Amino acid sequence: LEGRAPVGELAQRLAFLAEADRLKSVYRASTLGDASRHENSAEHSWHLALYALVMAPHAGAGTDIGRVIRMLILHDLVEIDAGDVPIHAANGAAHHGAAQAAAEEAAARRIFGLLPAAQGQEFHALWAEFEKNESPDAVFAKSLDRAQPVMQNIVSGGGSWIEYEVTYAQLVERVGVRIERGAPHLWRWLDARAQGFFNRPQ
Amino acid sequence: LEGRAPVGELAQRLAFLAEADRLKSVYRASTLGDASRHENSAEHSWHLALYALVMAPHAGAGTDIGRVIRMLILHDLVEIDAGDVPIHAANGAAHHGAAQAAAEEAAARRIFGLLPAAQGQEFHALWAEFEKNESPDAVFAKSLDRAQPVMQNIVSGGGSWIEYEVTYAQLVERVGVRIERGAPHLWRWLDARAQGFFNRPQ
Ligand SMILES: [Ca+2]
Repeated sequence: LEGRAPVGELAQRLAFLAEADRLKSVYRASTLGDASRHENSAEHSWHLALYALVMAPHAGAGTDIGRVIRMLILHDLVEIDAGDVPIHAANGAAHHGAAQAAAEEAAARRIFGLLPAAQGQEFHALWAEFEKNESPDAVFAKSLDRAQPVMQNIVSGGGSWIEYEVTYAQLVERVGVRIERGAPHLWRWLDARAQGFFNRPQ
Repeated sequence: LEGRAPVGELAQRLAFLAEADRLKSVYRASTLGDASRHENSAEHSWHLALYALVMAPHAGAGTDIGRVIRMLILHDLVEIDAGDVPIHAANGAAHHGAAQAAAEEAAARRIFGLLPAAQGQEFHALWAEFEKNESPDAVFAKSLDRAQPVMQNIVSGGGSWIEYEVTYAQLVERVGVRIERGAPHLWRWLDARAQGFFNRPQ
């Protein structure tokens, strides 16, 4: 059962895996379903990989779920350096700033740079594909990344929608459009439940 | 980009994903690398999926890393009902008890049973294959599941080895033999560092 990769590269791979551990200490705007605490980006990434596995039958033709899962496992590692920027923070403006994109690119270079070169380049390219959000795999992965916090907010009774005073129109504009692009049935299901929250008696 | 699965099954899939969220509240014996807190089974499962992705070049011929990753994403879900049994608890005896195995089988039936039948059966079978630890994919996945806590203990300076007063001989017997079976180079690397801990000046 021995693989044939050079044993000398093991130290680099394990240094990367030890560094990746820090993602467990990056906290997000969303909470756990029971609202007991905020969730971190490592457990969020696990949940997303599970979303991809479970939602695979709803993915469009041409989607490679194995690649989607790999993207989702890797997609937040840059937050170890660049932090998580909540999508509803700064009235929705912070998430797509050029400064944030530059910080994330530098983070990707540093973190994936810990690996043997060929593997680091492969992971960096997969992360860049996710960020670009154009290939079918990236579009589906990004839809799930936007859907999971909506689900967390539905289950926990508002979560980051309350914290950031989000309106239904903002949810549709910042999140809904993207979920619908890759997973239209899923968005319709979430949308109906989200409306239940936003139309609740005040 | 619309998949062709029945829309009516979405509610079952989302109920499963909401239930799976509870794995983020199951805590393990191992700590984070910085020893700041114990890690939970959801972020541990993410870390293991990343281990599989990174260690793929060291896997033996006949290993399907995509299946290994799926196994590792699913492997701890039963702990939502059955809890995590630390491998070094009760002097190493608790982990493989018949009562624990029965509790985990009941948990698998309940939790995977939340899904549409065909998908639930597929996941249950993948989890059972992991537990059986015979197929090449399961043996590699199990090796990584045993290696990651060793790495966490090496990085954090002892962790659960200190808490459960583990000896080097117990580490080899309870953990090392299994890591070596699926990932011999990895065990040699970890073994050398573990010996550094167990042979430290007292
Ligand atoms: Ca993110």
